[in-house]
Amino acid sequence: MKKLLFTAFCACTALGAYSQQAIWGVPPFVSPEVNADNTVTFRFQSPAAKEVYVSGDFLPTHKIKTPYGEFDAPGTAKLTKNGDMFEYTTEALDPELYSYSFYVDSVRMPDPVNVFQIRDTNTLTNIFLVKGDYATDYAVNDVPHGTVSKIWYPSKTYGTDRRLTVYTPAGYEQNKNQRYPVLYLCHGMGGDENAWTELGRAAQILDNMIAQGKVKPMIVVMPNGNADMQAAPGETKAGFLPPTTALPRTGDGSFEMAFPEIISFIEANYRTIPKKEARAMAGLSMGGMHTRFTSAQYPDLFDYVGLFSAAVQPISQNIEKSDVYKDMEAKLKTQFDKKPKLYWIGIGTADFLYDSNKQFRAQLDKLGYPYTYFESPEGHIWKNWRIYLREFLPKLFVTLK
Amino acid sequence: MKKLLFTAFCACTALGAYSQQAIWGVPPFVSPEVNADNTVTFRFQSPAAKEVYVSGDFLPTHKIKTPYGEFDAPGTAKLTKNGDMFEYTTEALDPELYSYSFYVDSVRMPDPVNVFQIRDTNTLTNIFLVKGDYATDYAVNDVPHGTVSKIWYPSKTYGTDRRLTVYTPAGYEQNKNQRYPVLYLCHGMGGDENAWTELGRAAQILDNMIAQGKVKPMIVVMPNGNADMQAAPGETKAGFLPPTTALPRTGDGSFEMAFPEIISFIEANYRTIPKKEARAMAGLSMGGMHTRFTSAQYPDLFDYVGLFSAAVQPISQNIEKSDVYKDMEAKLKTQFDKKPKLYWIGIGTADFLYDSNKQFRAQLDKLGYPYTYFESPEGHIWKNWRIYLREFLPKLFVTLK
Repeated sequence: MKKLLFTAFCACTALGAYSQQAIWGVPPFVSPEVNADNTVTFRFQSPAAKEVYVSGDFLPTHKIKTPYGEFDAPGTAKLTKNGDMFEYTTEALDPELYSYSFYVDSVRMPDPVNVFQIRDTNTLTNIFLVKGDYATDYAVNDVPHGTVSKIWYPSKTYGTDRRLTVYTPAGYEQNKNQRYPVLYLCHGMGGDENAWTELGRAAQILDNMIAQGKVKPMIVVMPNGNADMQAAPGETKAGFLPPTTALPRTGDGSFEMAFPEIISFIEANYRTIPKKEARAMAGLSMGGMHTRFTSAQYPDLFDYVGLFSAAVQPISQNIEKSDVYKDMEAKLKTQFDKKPKLYWIGIGTADFLYDSNKQFRAQLDKLGYPYTYFESPEGHIWKNWRIYLREFLPKLFVTLK
Repeated sequence: MKKLLFTAFCACTALGAYSQQAIWGVPPFVSPEVNADNTVTFRFQSPAAKEVYVSGDFLPTHKIKTPYGEFDAPGTAKLTKNGDMFEYTTEALDPELYSYSFYVDSVRMPDPVNVFQIRDTNTLTNIFLVKGDYATDYAVNDVPHGTVSKIWYPSKTYGTDRRLTVYTPAGYEQNKNQRYPVLYLCHGMGGDENAWTELGRAAQILDNMIAQGKVKPMIVVMPNGNADMQAAPGETKAGFLPPTTALPRTGDGSFEMAFPEIISFIEANYRTIPKKEARAMAGLSMGGMHTRFTSAQYPDLFDYVGLFSAAVQPISQNIEKSDVYKDMEAKLKTQFDKKPKLYWIGIGTADFLYDSNKQFRAQLDKLGYPYTYFESPEGHIWKNWRIYLREFLPKLFVTLK
């Protein structure tokens, strides 16, 4: 009886039988396989496919010219066919979290045997990790783990509940008398409250760097910065609808103006240290814009400010509607007169926002406002934002005992 | 400048340019499209593909014979080709959460324009929801939302931290003096701590039924029941490895024996009502087995017990190693002598465990042990487990004021 049951369990999926739950259904090969020498092998099986390519951010890019300028197009590599099995092995790769897709007879599709995918706006790509160097901090390691929660706060501004991702560090639940500083960490346009924990590996980076003693235990709050979204796609009453392309209120200033209601919710419901010295705000791209303007609008809120590949100029076409983007020079003066402990700017040399950041730095230089600058290769990509987070975190809350 | 930036944002993905983040990349059509009359249209675009089928649990199954018995094989439907666009529209479908995949020239692949997928063990399938009737409780509706957390508890038994999913009901954070009953809800073989919130829509079901006043606000704890796993695939130091097929310690009795350490952790760190009257345990398949044997091993822990398509006989081949599966008749007598408030059994008529459940019910009948029985059509599938959860929840904690 025991054996029979076990066999029946296993049989169900092998048959794809729908009256029973899928259990195993294991493909007879692994893809991708990260080999001991950091080469990576991709495999795809099909009796019918003629040509299979892998396209990924680990392959050499090539330049393409467009009406909007010159861009790096993703590299591709052809898998070699052997019977019905296609295979390709990369050069040895540097440590990094990589993403890729297959093109099977010109149709883009995920690797059907790799269940690990990340959604970036409305594109799903498969992922794999080559450990080593800083990328080891992107892995789940044998260290104490913080808690990641999806929690809804009531927004008076938007008249609805909105979803947050909150990271509390290991020990938060047990050390019931300890209070913690808070980093508010914002995503970019097209992202949502899931972006920093999925694409950004924020929980793993925090867990690892806190365990290494490099970063102070802190709460990290990741809001949804799109004014027209309550929550990530699939997590609202709109149902399983693709991410919208229309975010007309993004950048209308309402998110920046309303930011204090997020802080009030967090400080009422988590054991925070409710003072400027224990608050940081950072964000990437549009989230960098939110960070720049929120921190200037409310100069007593944050002692630590991080602009990651920031849209330093407002990106909305409705700028005039909000006070947030007015009197920026005066607000910036007030902000810097109050001497924030850190104003951090990071950008990649290939970023399409590089020049506007350069202009912004020139403005800060001219006015004698101190900031910390970090420049990386490459452009407007999550690889850089993970790197910036690792650079930024150790500099936070250093005056707290 | 503003317009230029916005245009550049949009252009990035259209080009698939890798020096900038993916932003939109919106396909020019929707798939699947749930039409107003509850028919559903699937679309797939490819200049190269010859034949495209959709395979899903909404299509009529057909019987196939195997060495293990007769099973329902999934139905398929062929998409009609029109130029490079393939399309198929179903009959009007009953309300339900459905799953499907495409077969493109015989290769199984997800729908490339539907970013919503659920992993069931190591199979990813696309999902869509036809609202209405009970399936409206599977949707995110405009009701107060609970918090879903991923939290790690220290296991002395396994010598490691292990991951839990914990649902706390709306208001938990704000009502700081309120204490709550707890349901411990277990997945099946091949599942993990994510299964009930992803495949089971547990958070949506709880949010909706609590808001309707049908279910008492409660904490729901969803542990990982596989003794050899710390956490779901991808969430451990093993990295992005496919779910293992080898779970040799599953069913060795260690999970049942160790269950009190999960309860201790929860009761130390959440505002629970720490008594039998305010504790329930339920599980599906292997989790039903865990529930049956844990609740009998510790007859003072749970006043509410739910067996969903349960493996009522131990499924391990190492049964002799554990005391959990010994003296079952005596333990069952003790459990029922203490008059649990609810012993609930649900199973589908097509379930491969139907006969063993029938035998178990006959045993309970013969001994005069009262239980509540719920029989559904179909088999060992998530559709049934969501239905059972909706049936079970309103019966819990009814004696609490």
